[in-house]
Formats: sequence, structure tokens, C-alpha cells
Amino acid sequence: MARVLVPFAEGVEEIECLAVVDILRRAGVEVVLASLDGQPVTGRSGVTIMADAALNDVADEDWDMVVLPGGLPNAHILRDNPAVRKVVERLMRARKSVAAICAAPTALAAYGLADGRRVTSYPSCREEMEKLAPASVYVDEDVVEDDVLTTSRGPGTAIAFALRLVARLCGEAAAAAVRREIVA
Amino acid sequence: MARVLVPFAEGVEEIECLAVVDILRRAGVEVVLASLDGQPVTGRSGVTIMADAALNDVADEDWDMVVLPGGLPNAHILRDNPAVRKVVERLMRARKSVAAICAAPTALAAYGLADGRRVTSYPSCREEMEKLAPASVYVDEDVVEDDVLTTSRGPGTAIAFALRLVARLCGEAAAAAVRREIVA
Repeated sequence: MARVLVPFAEGVEEIECLAVVDILRRAGVEVVLASLDGQPVTGRSGVTIMADAALNDVADEDWDMVVLPGGLPNAHILRDNPAVRKVVERLMRARKSVAAICAAPTALAAYGLADGRRVTSYPSCREEMEKLAPASVYVDEDVVEDDVLTTSRGPGTAIAFALRLVARLCGEAAAAAVRREIVA
Repeated sequence: MARVLVPFAEGVEEIECLAVVDILRRAGVEVVLASLDGQPVTGRSGVTIMADAALNDVADEDWDMVVLPGGLPNAHILRDNPAVRKVVERLMRARKSVAAICAAPTALAAYGLADGRRVTSYPSCREEMEKLAPASVYVDEDVVEDDVLTTSRGPGTAIAFALRLVARLCGEAAAAAVRREIVA
């Protein structure tokens, strides 16, 4: 069974976070939703979501993928957190999957992981992406894949993003089955 | 400011529930997410979400809309809860809005509120809908509106559903603005 880590913090975009967890779990993937301290997190729209774990307790485990949801200040908190950076860099080195949506691709750009790659983000983050990763290629598509990296735009693209992550981990047939199940 | 009540219970579909709350709040609508006892609720995909209130403490307040999310057993628990039935029937009588998605339209059918109306639901609930509401007209569309009633199909249609609810409460321009904001 594939294992996916989803770190999240105050101001997380609820749809982006929960669509990823819900859709990956529907595909049989083990997902751990980890806040920095293990405490519940209140999202940008005021919904408080419980964490499965504290990030530092689980970050060093074996993961097949790490997914960074968007929403502010969540995306900035994740970007500036050493444990998030460490697990993202470790997975990239190991050629495991790294994914980010909305404002969170800016974290990957800040870590120097977007240069030389096709990427997208929330539209208003484009300038920041291009400044942080001048050698990246910014693409105006809902979901953009480049090798181990998957990026996406916002809450309205979160379901398509999550289905692409299922396809990556479990294959296209599994993603098609979940797509039918959720009537997408 | 419009006020919307979203009752939810164990097994709620996380995307359906949170897309409604998130998107309505982005439009400036006051949304109260009410569990039956005010305690947190664990959804069908294992995410635990805090409640804003206990249903019995708020059900008798003035509401412009009540929205029933899907997921099981949530939809059955809501259907069988007297306070849910009472507030749904009160809003229908007052010609306020009532909305349901996925398995939750079966609650409206069970209350006798779907007869004579165009409705939809999660595809596998169609037979139950037609049995409970033989005088309803079942429609295979993502979001179906008939007078004060709005119904929808599943997680994959939850964002379109929520945007229609914004249009109903705040107007088409507001819905278009939120649609752009969420990149839908």
C-alpha cells in the first residue's frame, strides 16, 4: 500500500487538503495528515480539522509521496518549516513523488526544486514562482506533471489534482474507478 | 448576510461538506456547521472535523438555507433526526432554500418533499429516490434546481453545487467571482 504524507497548518485551504486525503484514501492509499504539533488546524475558511499525527513524529518514515496543500498562511508556514523541507528534499532525491497545489508550489520553488521543470500554481503566485525559480517553465494548466513533481492551481482543480496523484501511485485504472465513484 | 445551516454526522463525505462551507464562506455567507451533539465528526474517509454548534442549539434560529451533505451513514442519520426534518420542513414552508447532495436527497424524498419536483442524487440512490418519491422527476445532471430545492450528485459535483448555492443566495455575479477565485 502506498503511503502519503500531507503536512498542513493554520490557514490551509480546506477543499485542497480534504480532496487529496479523501480521494487518495478512496483508492486505498494510506494517508497521514500531519500538523506541525499534532494539534487540530483551522483552515482559511474557518473549518477546524484534526491531525492524524505531529509532523516531527512521522516525517522520517518511508513515504511514497508528500503533498503540500495551499491556503495562507499554511503554504508559507510549510515553506519555512525545516521538517517539511527535509522530507520534500529527501523524497525528490529518492525519486519519490512530490506534489503541491495553489500557493504551495512556491515552497518547492523556494527550495530550488522547480528550476528546469514545468510547474503551475495559484494564478496570483505566478510572479513569485518565476522570481524564485527563474529556470522553471510556468504552465497555465489545471494540473502539471514533470517527472516526480505534480503541481496544480487551486480549490477548483483539487479533485483533478488528487485524481492525478491516484493515477501516479495506483495506476490509471484505479484513478478512473475513483473518478466514477465520486461522479467527477 | 445570508445564514446557512449545514448539519453533519458520522460518515459525512468530507469534500461535499467542506466544499459547501468553504465556498459559501468565500461569498460572505454565514455558515454554521452543526453536528447533532456539537462534538467533532469523523467523515467517510476518516477525517475528523470540528462542529461550530450542536444542532438542537441552533436549529430553531432564522436560516436562509439548509444544506444536507452526503456520505453514509451521515445521510441516514440526518434523514432520521427529528431536528433535521423539522428545520427542512420549516424552511420549505417559508419558501427558503433547501439543498442536498449525494445520498442526502433521499432524506428530502423520505420527508415527501421531492414529489412533483425535478431532483437528482448519487447515481446508485436513484432507485431509492424513485421509490420514496414516485411523483418526482429524476434528472441525470450534476446540479438540479427546482424552485427552492437544489440537489446534486456526489463529491465530483460538490463545487458546482456550492457555486449554485452562492448564486441563489448572493446572485450570479458573486458566484462568478468565487468561481474565478477558486480557479473552477
